[in-house]
Parts: sequence; C-alpha cells; structure tokens
Amino acid sequence: MSDLLVRRIGRLTTWVGTPTVDAAVVIRNGRVEWSGPDRELPRGLGDGPQLDAAGAAVLPGFVDCHTHAVWAGDRRSDFVARLEGGDYVPGGIEATVAATRAADDSTLLRAAARRIRTMRANGTTTVEVKSGYGLRPDDEARLLEVIRRLDGTFGGIESTYLGAHVVPDGRNRSDYVAEVIASLPMAAAHGARWCDVFCDDGAFTTDEARQILTAAAGQGLGLRMHADQLAQVGASRLAAELRCASADHLDHVTVGDAHALASAGVVGVLVPVASLYTRSGRWSHAALLQQAGVTLAIATDCNPGSAYGESMPLAIQLACLEMGLSVETALRAATLGGAAALRRADIGHLGPGARGDLIVLASDHEVDVVAHLGAAAVTTTVTGGVVGRT
Amino acid sequence: MSDLLVRRIGRLTTWVGTPTVDAAVVIRNGRVEWSGPDRELPRGLGDGPQLDAAGAAVLPGFVDCHTHAVWAGDRRSDFVARLEGGDYVPGGIEATVAATRAADDSTLLRAAARRIRTMRANGTTTVEVKSGYGLRPDDEARLLEVIRRLDGTFGGIESTYLGAHVVPDGRNRSDYVAEVIASLPMAAAHGARWCDVFCDDGAFTTDEARQILTAAAGQGLGLRMHADQLAQVGASRLAAELRCASADHLDHVTVGDAHALASAGVVGVLVPVASLYTRSGRWSHAALLQQAGVTLAIATDCNPGSAYGESMPLAIQLACLEMGLSVETALRAATLGGAAALRRADIGHLGPGARGDLIVLASDHEVDVVAHLGAAAVTTTVTGGVVGRT
Repeated sequence: MSDLLVRRIGRLTTWVGTPTVDAAVVIRNGRVEWSGPDRELPRGLGDGPQLDAAGAAVLPGFVDCHTHAVWAGDRRSDFVARLEGGDYVPGGIEATVAATRAADDSTLLRAAARRIRTMRANGTTTVEVKSGYGLRPDDEARLLEVIRRLDGTFGGIESTYLGAHVVPDGRNRSDYVAEVIASLPMAAAHGARWCDVFCDDGAFTTDEARQILTAAAGQGLGLRMHADQLAQVGASRLAAELRCASADHLDHVTVGDAHALASAGVVGVLVPVASLYTRSGRWSHAALLQQAGVTLAIATDCNPGSAYGESMPLAIQLACLEMGLSVETALRAATLGGAAALRRADIGHLGPGARGDLIVLASDHEVDVVAHLGAAAVTTTVTGGVVGRT
Repeated sequence: MSDLLVRRIGRLTTWVGTPTVDAAVVIRNGRVEWSGPDRELPRGLGDGPQLDAAGAAVLPGFVDCHTHAVWAGDRRSDFVARLEGGDYVPGGIEATVAATRAADDSTLLRAAARRIRTMRANGTTTVEVKSGYGLRPDDEARLLEVIRRLDGTFGGIESTYLGAHVVPDGRNRSDYVAEVIASLPMAAAHGARWCDVFCDDGAFTTDEARQILTAAAGQGLGLRMHADQLAQVGASRLAAELRCASADHLDHVTVGDAHALASAGVVGVLVPVASLYTRSGRWSHAALLQQAGVTLAIATDCNPGSAYGESMPLAIQLACLEMGLSVETALRAATLGGAAALRRADIGHLGPGARGDLIVLASDHEVDVVAHLGAAAVTTTVTGGVVGRT
C-alpha cells in the first residue's frame, strides 16, 4: 500500500459521476484520496511517486469474482474431443483432480502464480480463487494454503472453499456431503472466506447444496453457488432463498428465477468464456437477468476444462458481443459488479477511500477494451497504489 | 533472409508428415533446409545463429489472407450503437473513408505499422492488406503506397486493390465502376497483386463485380471477392465462374454455392471475428463449406468497423468454438489455407524450400493456440529466418 499520483489521464472513469478528461488521481496509503481534472489538482497532493498515463484512459481494476486458478495438468484431450463431437460433462473434472493431487505444493503454487500474473497483465486487481480440485480434506487444505500464499504474494485474492465441486469417483454421495460439511472449519482455518457449491445436473442436488451452505453460513463463511449452468435444477431459487452473495453461470435460469435473485439481492455472475468454451450456444440468460433487475458481474471462470483463460477483457468482449450487454453495462459488471458479488465496497470504483486499484489502458478511450479484440487492453496495472509491470 | 538453427523444439508441426518431438529446424538463406529430430541434425548444419525453443511447440507462421489494415480514425460510436440495438451496414465505411482521406501518409503508415507489429506479435508472418478507404484514385494510390512501404519495412505483405469497397456517397454507380476499372493500371503500378470486390447487398452487384474483376484479370491482377456476407446475392457463384483465388466471408452461402467453389478450386476464407463483431449469429457456413470439400482459410478481416483486431489466434479460436472446426483443421486453415488463398506454395508449411517463417508458441503443444483463450499464444515470430522480438 503506497502513495501514487497518476497524471495526464486522457479519460478517467471512476464510476462516481461521468468520465473526466485530462484527469489525475491521487492515491495515499493505498487508497484514493482525490481525483478530478489535472489542472485542479490541489496543492500539496502533487508530491511523491508519479505515473504518467500519457493520455491513455484509466479504469478501476477488474474484479474477477469467479476463478478456479489452482490446478495441475491440462485438459487438451477433452478439448480436442469436444470439437470432434463430444459434450462437456462435469466428469472431466476428475482428470484434473488426479493431476492436482499428484502435484506437489510448489508446482501448484508456481502454476497458479503464473495465471495470477497473466490476470494482472490483463487488468485484474482482485481475484476470487476456489479450491475444488483436491476433493479430499488434506488436498483441499493444500489448495487453500496455495490460495493463501498467492494472496501473500499478490494481494487482492479472495479464497473460496469448493469441496462441493463434484462427488469424487467411487465415493458415496451422502458420505461425501458429510465430509464436506465436516471440513468447513478446516476451510475457514486455511483462510477461506467463502463456500461455493456446484449445484447442477451431474453435480450436487439442491438438497445437498442447502445442507452444505447452511452449515457453511453457520461457520461464518459467505455463500456463493454455481447455479443452473447445465440444467434448470432450482439452484437459483436456492441461492435466493439462502441470500447467497452470488449465483454464477445461470445459463438455464427462468424469468421467475431471475426475479427471485433480484429480490434477494443475489448478484448474477456471467461467465461467457465458459459458454463459448463448452459451445453451449446459450447467451440469452444475460438479457433475462438484466431485465429482471439482477445486479450483474462478469468473471473469467478460469479453469482448465471449461474456460481456460485468464483474460477479463475477453470475458467483457463476449458479454457484449454474444450476450448483448452494452459497453458501459459490461465495464460496470466487470468492476462494480464483481465487487458486489464479493460484498466489497472498497473495490470496483475509484471514489474517495476506494483501494488504489486502477488500470491504464492501451487506448485513450475505455470503449476499446471491448471494441479492440484480441489485443493487449491494459498497459499498466496498479494495485493499492503500487505500479505493477505487465 | 538469413540463416538460423532452431533447436530444442518440444513439438514441431511442419504439415509434412506428423509432428516431431524434440526437433530442430535448419533455415539457410531464409529457406527451410532441413527439419527433424534434434538428435539427427546432420553435421555441418549446426553452425550459425541459433534460437533455443526451450521445449516449446513450433508451427509455421500464420498467413492472414484478408485484412484492411490501413485506415485512420475509429468507429467506436458505431460499435457502441450496435450494442444498443443497431445493425451493421456497409455505410459505416464512409466514416472511415473520410478520416482516411483527411490523414497524411505518415499518419496512415504509422497506424498501419503498429497493426502489423501487433499481427507479428500474434504469430502472423504473411499479411494480405487491402486498400479501399480512399475510394478516389489519388487516395487509393496513397493507400497502395502505404502498403508497399509496409512490405519494405516488414516483408511478407501482399497488396490488394479494393477500390470496389462501396460506392462512395454522392457518386453515380456506373461512373464509379468505370473509375475503378480505369484505375486498375494505377493499382498495378503501385504494387497491387490482387483485385478484390465487395459483392453484396448494399455494396456491388454481381454484374458490376464481373466487369471489374474481368478487367482486373486483363491487367494481370489476381482475383478475390468479399462474397455473400450480408445476403446471398450470387457472389460465390461468380467467384467460382471467374476462378477467383478466394471467396471471403460466405455467411449466406448455399450447398450449391459451396460445391461450385470446391469445383472451381476457390479457397473459402472464414472471418469469424467479423461474424462475432457484427453479431451476425451466423456460423454454420463453415461446416457447409467443409462438407462440400472447399479448401478453407481463416483470416482476421482486421478493419475498424466490423472486425477490429489483429489476432490470428482469436480468429482460430472462434473458428473452432463457434464454427466447429477441429483444432487441426483450423490450424491448417490459418497457415496452409491462407497460403492457398494467396496462391503461395512457399509459405504456410515448413517443408524443405519453404520460407523460414515460423512461430515459437507459449506452450509445449499447439492445441493451446486454441485451448488457451485470451492469452499470448506466441513468444517468438521468425520471418525468413530472422528472429523478431515480440
């Protein structure tokens, strides 16, 4: 956490009021102290380290509120097979579980750190990272420790326990659910702030999810759900009932489900890269959620099998071009929306007191984050006032 | 054109035979002289400059056979409006024409060079670049000169005259067609090797396209067409009749059209970024063309209004995930297919005698060009045996 003055910003978006041209931002002790037109910079705030934006646009850093960034192995054979005619089934997760269990901690940490660095280079300043490729208490604990170490190295990491990713091969369902519940104190002890359940056809039922999430709330963990991605199984309704912080995927959500989510204040997390990657052809849920008044977030879902990619700009581009969000709606969803999904008021915007997490774009206009495909959207990522090299 | 020995290639794809592991490539005088297992490297070929691939996969460089990379201005307002409910119409081209006419040569060259560098960084070693934002003989000549200067700087540029992009505002159609035809010797004199016509609803009719292309062939120019993107207007049939080198876009092609293209040896150029960017929702033509036996290429269509992006990896990813091509089919289309569309036997593969145009990937397996979305797929681009810095 440090001091920084960012000057010569061509166009500054803070989400407090309209964009300012020829702007500056003052970060003191890692927090935004002042922003406004460069020429109105108050005396005395212009000391200390400076970053010259050279006319580029600046946005709040992206908040990627749904990733599975800790894994070993690859899923190339799944991927090739799917393009030759197969469908995505959650069973492919087992291959990653086997590779992850077989990998040592330093291998897992090195691979995950590389992914976080790629995220940073693409403008992500806060990342939620889930466990869920251990699926045994000891291995889940190892993954949560890797996530804790990532936070120690990079900062800005939110940790989620996803023991309820799938029922591991050969395990009795109810025994496994009991084990997940019994592991909740372990998860909290290893730094998890959140508990997530993959509630879907082929994963956990709503009854199982209710048991796990109710117990998680009792342990002080916040709640999130993978909901109704592969089929409408009532997961969104459960997310509303339990007032989860977020319900994610939602490809098969109904209008009624969407209204329930909106009423309960559950953030709907769109993961368009997963829709593309699994060739689901489902995009219309985004408009349906938006029309129902659900607060939207956009996340990468970064994982090896169904959304292998670290890039928030790509997720934002697909949210616009495939799901039909406007540019401003998508940029808000990728910043403020992600913050809401993590129940964080201090990130996702650059109002006074916010964390000094911002990105200098490769363009003088933020529309190019969406309009310029396949290009490096971000030149510099600042976290807590510290300038990263990307 | 230079000598280079590329060693420690984890997996080498040349398109001559199956991939080789632990391989090496010898480039002499800018051409591939030998490739094979590293341990079988013949004595005497191991001298001279070396590039260590450090276990990464190597592919032939991408051949981007359809771009409009020379323009000024931007089309952000179009883009934002389209996401708020409008449709893509070719009329938007006029805004770019006005900005391009107003820009001086050095501005045009600098902007285009930046795009070519981005292409290189993404693994493109040969780029076709069209004129078409001048739409007056003098301005078209300026654009063709910019393209010639790009070739002087970068090499590997194929120049295409696209005076027949749209009928400029306020011009009489038949007068304009006559002007395009009268400009063909000028185009050839300024380095154009190809003539292209945008033959579609709202652009040029098949009769107009036939007149222009027949005259172009008489001037020794090769023929290509923007065909049946916005509507089925008979453009593909004309491309087959005239034995064009390529017919591009083809979103509205019929089975009969596809068989005509296949019989005539016309390469079908897929531009999936344009389909995404314009939100056409049309992807099935790729499978239809493939089933008819049309040789496929993949290109970026890089342009400011309907496909703003320089990345062949993104185009390849969309060709797989949206159009359903297999990974190998897509990688062949992006290399060999592009070469076929440009009637070049010396690029798109790494057989003996081919140009020493190759890319070192960020992964040890070429599947990751498609499977790892939104990431930098390429670490080093080599053109004619010269190692570029990306």
